[in-house]
Amino acid sequence: MTDSMIIVTKLEELSYARCFLDGPVGLVPTMGYLHAGHISLVRQARIECKSVIATIFVNPTQFAQNEDLAKYPRDIERDLKMLQAESVDIVWLPTTEVMYPAGYQTWVEVENLTKPLEGSIRPGHFRGVTTVVSKLFNATRPDKAYFGQKDAQQAAVIQQMTRDLSYPIKLVVCPTLRDADGLALSSRNSYLDIDQRQAAVVLFRALSKAKVAFSQGERSANVICQIVRDVVNSEPLARLQYVSCADYETLVELEKINTRALLSLAVFVGNTRLIDNFILGNME
Amino acid sequence: MTDSMIIVTKLEELSYARCFLDGPVGLVPTMGYLHAGHISLVRQARIECKSVIATIFVNPTQFAQNEDLAKYPRDIERDLKMLQAESVDIVWLPTTEVMYPAGYQTWVEVENLTKPLEGSIRPGHFRGVTTVVSKLFNATRPDKAYFGQKDAQQAAVIQQMTRDLSYPIKLVVCPTLRDADGLALSSRNSYLDIDQRQAAVVLFRALSKAKVAFSQGERSANVICQIVRDVVNSEPLARLQYVSCADYETLVELEKINTRALLSLAVFVGNTRLIDNFILGNME
Repeated sequence: MTDSMIIVTKLEELSYARCFLDGPVGLVPTMGYLHAGHISLVRQARIECKSVIATIFVNPTQFAQNEDLAKYPRDIERDLKMLQAESVDIVWLPTTEVMYPAGYQTWVEVENLTKPLEGSIRPGHFRGVTTVVSKLFNATRPDKAYFGQKDAQQAAVIQQMTRDLSYPIKLVVCPTLRDADGLALSSRNSYLDIDQRQAAVVLFRALSKAKVAFSQGERSANVICQIVRDVVNSEPLARLQYVSCADYETLVELEKINTRALLSLAVFVGNTRLIDNFILGNME
Repeated sequence: MTDSMIIVTKLEELSYARCFLDGPVGLVPTMGYLHAGHISLVRQARIECKSVIATIFVNPTQFAQNEDLAKYPRDIERDLKMLQAESVDIVWLPTTEVMYPAGYQTWVEVENLTKPLEGSIRPGHFRGVTTVVSKLFNATRPDKAYFGQKDAQQAAVIQQMTRDLSYPIKLVVCPTLRDADGLALSSRNSYLDIDQRQAAVVLFRALSKAKVAFSQGERSANVICQIVRDVVNSEPLARLQYVSCADYETLVELEKINTRALLSLAVFVGNTRLIDNFILGNME
């Protein structure tokens, strides 16, 4: 841990500052507008690593044309104060020009795990994610990297990329943090008005009801998904985009839940798209 | 420099051995069957870096179905002796299973620079190259990496990838080494019989004649390429696949040579495909 937090923009500044860090080095990549979920990643990194690098970059290549890149919430001043309070060693705040200079033309793609779920609905999203995470890994050379379970497919895709591309990096996937009523923390929750915020708890309610059925012995993925559908459909402000009950490793849809399963859903509340998931056959 | 050369196969062994190297670390990636060209890269690395890692891996994903993967020449014993004699610190000899384990599904692609020349004739070749080089970079975390000018487009593509993916790695492109008669050193020269070996010098003769015309003021890319064509066509054992006179940075074909140009060609001598190039408007 260094005395004060170093904030860098350019790759050369980062590489220079990186030289002085003691290992192991933990990386917490974020898109900023930090909440307690991000901070839980930083704290886990702080526990496990001698040095911690956090990055803040709203990565344009993981947003499709019709998505919320322009209005994605930003508050760098607040973010930096929060990271400073957690004794982060280096914060890398690259600009879009630093990350995607003129003539940029290189992409990292994971082929199979990116096809279902979020990948089927957000074409190009995971190509943007794996490309930028690969860049963050290359620039910061961490020993460990921290991601949230809330973006379950993202964590699985990055795990696959890390293994496939021979990165000597251990991924740590930390539990989803939730508000008191169960809503998963997300920077996008800031889009919700009061009524929508109340309605948004329907994702957690739906997952919880399905989980109860699972604990009582229900093993049909269809029945489990129908429970989720029914709960979400009972909320007038919510519109279900998908619900999936898939093998946790391969993300292939299950018929019978006889393996660790990822139960996940995407829901529109007003114009705000929210995702959440539970792991079935596990601790959560 | 450590006392004796460490030879590793698995990624974990490499990562462990890598910890003990003093920086800067130089990487020399090879497909083995080493010749003086490779050794010149190792020596340059030895001059510029405190530690040197060499890799030997005949990368299957950069060979197309119809290409010479199976018969590509191999002599690991001899390679290791040569690297030992150059005081290489670590040699990484991964197996195909280490590099591409079951379920492998991640690819690194450079979009534009890979389209012309070798890329137009060898579909998928550069995807294999950038993917494996990215893996070698990730696993070895070098400060500098050494490539030969003989594979000019490969060097340009890897340079683009290195910049685009934010690798803090300096690429060093070393001059092509040649036999006394001018034939560029290549592991594939071992495929040639005595007559073919004599005929193979036609690549160098063609480039040299074009270079003379260039030094005498010729600036038409068409005329320069026609000189190459005429020389190659005068050799009965040689069959020209392509000749190109392209901008050195973008690899876009030129009409007038008013910038640094890459004059390159691919020629079949019997069943053996040879490539070579000169830079025009430069020192070579």
